[in-house]
Amino acid sequence: MAKNYIYMFDKGRADMRELLGGKGANLAEMTRIGLPVPYGFTITTEACNQYYSEGETLPKGLDEQLEVAIKKLEKKSGKKFGDAKNPLLISVRSGARASMPGMMDTILNLGINDQVASTLAKLTGNEKFAYDSYRRFIQMYSDVVCGVDSKLFENALSRAKQKAKVDKDIELSAKDLKELVATFKEIYKKNMGVNFPTDAKVQLIEAIKAVFRSWNNERAKVYRRMNDIPSDWGTAVNVQMMVFGNMGETSGTGVAFTRNPATGEKALYGEYLMNAQGEDVVAGIRTPSPISHLREQNEKLYAQFVSICNKLENHYKDMQDMEFTIENGKLYMLQTRNGKRTAKAALRIAIDLVNEGLLTKKEALLKIEPKSLDSLLHPTFSEKALKQAKAVAKGLPASPGAACGKVVFDYAGAKALVDKGEKVVLVRNETSPEDILGMKISQGILTARGGMTSHAAVVARGMGACCVAGCNELVVDEEKGVAKLAGNTLKAGTVISFDGNTGNIYLGEIPTEEAKITGDFATIMSWAKEYTVLGVKANADTPQDAKRAVELGAEGIGLCRTEHMFFGEDRIQTMRQFILATTLSEREKALNKLRTMQESDFYNMLKKLEGLPFTVRYLDPPLHEFLPKEDKDINELAKLTGKKVSEIREVIASLKEFNPMMGYRGCRLAIVMPELARMQTRALIDAGCKAISRGIKCDIHIMVPLVGDVKELKFVKDIITSTADEIIAKAKVDLKYEVGTMIEIPRACMLADEIAKVADFYSFGTNDLTQMTYGFSRDDIGKFLPAYYEHGILEVDPFVRVDANGVGKLIKHTIDLTNAVKKNFSYGVCGEQGGDPKSVEFFCEAGLTYVSCSPYRVPIAILAAAQASINLGKV
Amino acid sequence: MAKNYIYMFDKGRADMRELLGGKGANLAEMTRIGLPVPYGFTITTEACNQYYSEGETLPKGLDEQLEVAIKKLEKKSGKKFGDAKNPLLISVRSGARASMPGMMDTILNLGINDQVASTLAKLTGNEKFAYDSYRRFIQMYSDVVCGVDSKLFENALSRAKQKAKVDKDIELSAKDLKELVATFKEIYKKNMGVNFPTDAKVQLIEAIKAVFRSWNNERAKVYRRMNDIPSDWGTAVNVQMMVFGNMGETSGTGVAFTRNPATGEKALYGEYLMNAQGEDVVAGIRTPSPISHLREQNEKLYAQFVSICNKLENHYKDMQDMEFTIENGKLYMLQTRNGKRTAKAALRIAIDLVNEGLLTKKEALLKIEPKSLDSLLHPTFSEKALKQAKAVAKGLPASPGAACGKVVFDYAGAKALVDKGEKVVLVRNETSPEDILGMKISQGILTARGGMTSHAAVVARGMGACCVAGCNELVVDEEKGVAKLAGNTLKAGTVISFDGNTGNIYLGEIPTEEAKITGDFATIMSWAKEYTVLGVKANADTPQDAKRAVELGAEGIGLCRTEHMFFGEDRIQTMRQFILATTLSEREKALNKLRTMQESDFYNMLKKLEGLPFTVRYLDPPLHEFLPKEDKDINELAKLTGKKVSEIREVIASLKEFNPMMGYRGCRLAIVMPELARMQTRALIDAGCKAISRGIKCDIHIMVPLVGDVKELKFVKDIITSTADEIIAKAKVDLKYEVGTMIEIPRACMLADEIAKVADFYSFGTNDLTQMTYGFSRDDIGKFLPAYYEHGILEVDPFVRVDANGVGKLIKHTIDLTNAVKKNFSYGVCGEQGGDPKSVEFFCEAGLTYVSCSPYRVPIAILAAAQASINLGKV
Repeated sequence: MAKNYIYMFDKGRADMRELLGGKGANLAEMTRIGLPVPYGFTITTEACNQYYSEGETLPKGLDEQLEVAIKKLEKKSGKKFGDAKNPLLISVRSGARASMPGMMDTILNLGINDQVASTLAKLTGNEKFAYDSYRRFIQMYSDVVCGVDSKLFENALSRAKQKAKVDKDIELSAKDLKELVATFKEIYKKNMGVNFPTDAKVQLIEAIKAVFRSWNNERAKVYRRMNDIPSDWGTAVNVQMMVFGNMGETSGTGVAFTRNPATGEKALYGEYLMNAQGEDVVAGIRTPSPISHLREQNEKLYAQFVSICNKLENHYKDMQDMEFTIENGKLYMLQTRNGKRTAKAALRIAIDLVNEGLLTKKEALLKIEPKSLDSLLHPTFSEKALKQAKAVAKGLPASPGAACGKVVFDYAGAKALVDKGEKVVLVRNETSPEDILGMKISQGILTARGGMTSHAAVVARGMGACCVAGCNELVVDEEKGVAKLAGNTLKAGTVISFDGNTGNIYLGEIPTEEAKITGDFATIMSWAKEYTVLGVKANADTPQDAKRAVELGAEGIGLCRTEHMFFGEDRIQTMRQFILATTLSEREKALNKLRTMQESDFYNMLKKLEGLPFTVRYLDPPLHEFLPKEDKDINELAKLTGKKVSEIREVIASLKEFNPMMGYRGCRLAIVMPELARMQTRALIDAGCKAISRGIKCDIHIMVPLVGDVKELKFVKDIITSTADEIIAKAKVDLKYEVGTMIEIPRACMLADEIAKVADFYSFGTNDLTQMTYGFSRDDIGKFLPAYYEHGILEVDPFVRVDANGVGKLIKHTIDLTNAVKKNFSYGVCGEQGGDPKSVEFFCEAGLTYVSCSPYRVPIAILAAAQASINLGKV
Repeated sequence: MAKNYIYMFDKGRADMRELLGGKGANLAEMTRIGLPVPYGFTITTEACNQYYSEGETLPKGLDEQLEVAIKKLEKKSGKKFGDAKNPLLISVRSGARASMPGMMDTILNLGINDQVASTLAKLTGNEKFAYDSYRRFIQMYSDVVCGVDSKLFENALSRAKQKAKVDKDIELSAKDLKELVATFKEIYKKNMGVNFPTDAKVQLIEAIKAVFRSWNNERAKVYRRMNDIPSDWGTAVNVQMMVFGNMGETSGTGVAFTRNPATGEKALYGEYLMNAQGEDVVAGIRTPSPISHLREQNEKLYAQFVSICNKLENHYKDMQDMEFTIENGKLYMLQTRNGKRTAKAALRIAIDLVNEGLLTKKEALLKIEPKSLDSLLHPTFSEKALKQAKAVAKGLPASPGAACGKVVFDYAGAKALVDKGEKVVLVRNETSPEDILGMKISQGILTARGGMTSHAAVVARGMGACCVAGCNELVVDEEKGVAKLAGNTLKAGTVISFDGNTGNIYLGEIPTEEAKITGDFATIMSWAKEYTVLGVKANADTPQDAKRAVELGAEGIGLCRTEHMFFGEDRIQTMRQFILATTLSEREKALNKLRTMQESDFYNMLKKLEGLPFTVRYLDPPLHEFLPKEDKDINELAKLTGKKVSEIREVIASLKEFNPMMGYRGCRLAIVMPELARMQTRALIDAGCKAISRGIKCDIHIMVPLVGDVKELKFVKDIITSTADEIIAKAKVDLKYEVGTMIEIPRACMLADEIAKVADFYSFGTNDLTQMTYGFSRDDIGKFLPAYYEHGILEVDPFVRVDANGVGKLIKHTIDLTNAVKKNFSYGVCGEQGGDPKSVEFFCEAGLTYVSCSPYRVPIAILAAAQASINLGKV
């Protein structure tokens, strides 16, 4: 017997979103709790996956199940699908497990044809409505199912309006619309070579297939990659009886949030349009009315809506984003979901919901997307500069942040400048799903049209990107690539600034300043630290970074890359002298200089840390990275060192490697040149002794990189301890230090129990470990990564998110082996994955002690760590 | 209580060699079975290891134990150690677990000083003997214990002989020797700043320490590395009552083998010198007499010796290499061990011992060193060429083989030429342990002095290197770097040839021909195949290689690197056209040409294999390896393809990678360019169909390289099966094929159970797996490998021998995971480790199905596989 691929709305529940998709599960849930939802059913995500695994054909048995389901709709409505006398029209909408707004496809008014349209006109006495619905259906079906360019229909619509001498679509008469339907059918026939399908059943089957196909369209793939949605989730399809917002002036459609998605303020927030259907509200073509106007128009209906909003928010315990339609004065709910919101709003809402008694702190922490905090850490406009600046125009503050950059009008323009390292802002009349790539690489988005819930606003908030929408003083000529902003001409390349918190738009650049953790943000951070078992440290190489890391909540430094101290203009030359040294005295002279510099850096960092852990990794990169490449620099170095250019070139050549990532680097440097480890130890321990003697607490952890065998670590550790212990004994201070190692070589993972006998702690170097485990050179994967994404072999860059299935197994193996020989051992991880929430979850599950990431990702990691601790039942 | 570090000879046994070293264990065993062995004791290898772990100081308790042991020697001998009236002299010799001839140190006549010498002269009535022993002791002690250059003493000895107007050492009178002793003591004092030590106890303690130190001298380290002896084994020290071969004409010393170590012939074989001590026989300074002369000199003693030889051979069931001393007509045994022998002799002896009923076939197989077979696979001089050539001189055929190359006189000279890719032969008056590096890189060794058991002969046989020793017509002036050979002048760079089987020496080059497996070699190979559970295949890329592989006993091809087919002069240009193609038609044209070439190669290989397994790896290396580097070649390619030089340079630049080993290669190529896999499949399956249709059996295994995820394999396998199945269906032939993968990425090891669901077989690519597991780029380790050896972090190149502890764990993990999901799965290994006996043992233990190595290592692998199977109890 075939699998059950269809669930009627009264058979589903909110917790079935894996099977029914988010939209389907919530339609069922709303049905279950008695809200007015047009009846319908959901075709499962399993059907979608089956569709793909069977080479893009609908699964067996679905056809029969569809007939049964349609019968049930017919019974409920008393109408018949495809019937000329009493026709049932339906909508077909995609609905994946995770919300992917605008990414996939919707078809409304399905089941219509010439006869049905004419019947509909008679039955409703509203010919205009009937043909408006018909023309809409032809356009959606042609676009979604057959890929006929929507512009052809838009242009025909414009010509029809010109001919009728009207401005708006709704001003077209029934006759105009009837003619338009005929034109639309001609466009279809011209493009497809056949007549527009009249059989409702055919329309339905093709629409379902089109929704399944839309799961793999380009923009859906990009969106999934950006939002970490696996491609094997698939989408569900929701089939629902139509209710019509385009039946005239007592009908309408709208969207609303139970709270303000930009600020989090507790107030109903939304927009609606009367005599409209589907995307009319969010497409930004007509400017909708704020939801509060509804109260004036229809107080009873407004009260009903408010009551539904409250019911939904209490039911879901979260801010809701809803779609509704009013058909002849009757309210229908078409969708509800947890609303996307800015980070600022997310913090506010989470705290409010706790204060309102709706959520516990733990539950509230889970409501905030850690990645979204990133937007709060972006620089904001300096208040001082803002006071002096004068806004030339104002739009809607659709998504907060401070954007400043060169104007671009499309993705190509944006990419060209971004590739050169420039910052850009995308300026459009309105955005459409095709703009998503351009939005992604821009500092902010500015649109002339559309409200707070327009495509631009919704997507920008999702991305944490700054957006000012619906600026009436902006007119963009996208063809010509020029815009007018309150009388000023903006060309591609003109620098402007705008403020997503106020909607103000400025010409030129406004200086920015660093974000601070205060208010709601600070509250949530303190809650997160309360509920986590996984610590968060920062990667910091300078006293400045160390200061910032502590300000942002890091509980110490998990990785100080000492080589970064050698890259400064004054230092690199000394490092080069060391590398070029041919006599002991030359070498020692250079080492002494380096030591003095490092000691002062270390001391200043210890001062900023005030006793927090300071984990110092010894020199790691291949030496050739320090040597000059350009002739000019080589000549300069020759002058400085008194060496011949040819000598320098020889050293450069001798350090050249085939695969430097796997070459002469890491602890291998200290094994060949023990004086390096001795110098670094002296610098660090001298700094520590000095700090202690001045009353500054120290917690020093020395980390040996790239160890693959216990003998390597033992050799280097012996150098470190003999050097350090002598200095400490001489200084007569009570300075403790630990010597541990990076775990970044697969061999070290397999021998972790042996290495643990010599190591005081471990820190996983996930960059190198991923490189070696996959055999992927991080710098070279660009050549095949696109093909890997294309064929679904990879869905996410394993350097960005820990590969739990492969690298993760090695990490767990390491911990298992080590736990068997040492108790209370500390396991860290350093590298950018430490700031990736999904990776943090894995690290928490694997039993790590802390993650370390760049200072700006610390707050994200702290929240992610709390969420992981809560989700895994560890707190 | 301190550990027991000392075993008297009557407390040990042959099977205690780990603790007592080979020499000590065998001295004890000989004592136990009643042979005449001077009494003594062994200080254990544990004492040596303790010495090193305590920072080079003798372990606690050893001192007291030494006193007790010396007391026992005193009691047995009735003499007193260090006593002026009735002195006991002793020898102190190193003795590691494995024999390391000449690598470590020996001190004879210890306990002597002015008083003792004079007493000794009185007691024996032989003043000459007493001062000969004394001068020998001073020289040995100064050299071994204090590092005073032996040459200083040799020169003094020469001057003494000049002064006395005699030629030989033994012609010096007692007075001459007495004066020489005084001179020697002065040399000591001048170099050491103190008088020569007179206290016997001090002499003993210092000698023991010196032996321990000698374990880590440079030549011992090199020897260990060459012979795979772990540095943590340590050496034992044997302390024994002296017996004197230098007491006059009824005394002497000698060495002997129970069978001929060069040919295996069953005949007592050895040399001795009367009135001589220690190294005199093997040092090649005086030419010794063959052992058969002893029968004429002293028939009774000869008979006793022959009987001892027989007893030892029967006892140890192997050919023995013995040292003996005759003191005043009485025979003493000083050492026995399994004799080093040539591969030819090893085969002969193994077969003879089976025929004599002393060994079973299994036991006999264990007696042959697999690596030694290598020497039998070297080319031999073509018989035809030998007939036409005329030998200019003849030496002793000390180690078989055919050597041809440019004359060099030392290591430096050898290395300079070898680095340029030239072949060299080392020509010396006599070799010393310092020459070992030079011998290692030479085609053969030719010496003017020394017999069949001289240093040169013994070491050459151990290495499997060709050696002609003791050529009387050769005089080498090593200082000037010139030699005379039967009237001909040999300068550095002169090409000569010599034959280790006959001892003939030729001027110029003699052509060589490939070795064949016949006679004893063939017998042993057939026994080995009888007793193995591990198969042996070959890596072969051409029909010629395939033919040779089968001749050498391979049971198929385990790795055909298809890219090697593209490197030929005619083919590489087509490959380049493919890489440079910018249009589909260009690309297809090039692919078609490549396909035709590959199909013909594949067909010819299948023909040679006649149904044996043929494992084909698809294109693996980074594409840039195929592109030209030189301007000339780039210009030529431009002409050929009609592309601009700048275009070609752009492609070359675009394919440049930071870490190509981890870059765009392996299955990544086929995923980005599926047409490549399709082309290779068509070529292979077309060839297979053609072969089948002509009655040639085929067993095709397709191998996808560099897989790290099951999705990669699935993607490529889908391409392969869809292409292959279509061709097979069209051809209507019964062609089977399997699709498997290389396991060479650590991630694949961790996910082997997932990958096994798609793979038909696995083959471990140990080169890449070692690279990734260690994070060692094979091409770049030269920068730190010497330091790793120096500090004992590595003892063997992990690319040569499988790293059982690290990489090996991943291999076992792979097999465990896979066995859990698939039964009767085939696991191979390809790469040079497949021909390394110790690696083969590991692979056998790990449960692999077969190893695959280069054709010339196939016999070695077959024998190693049999030994492993026997040792592990698998047969």
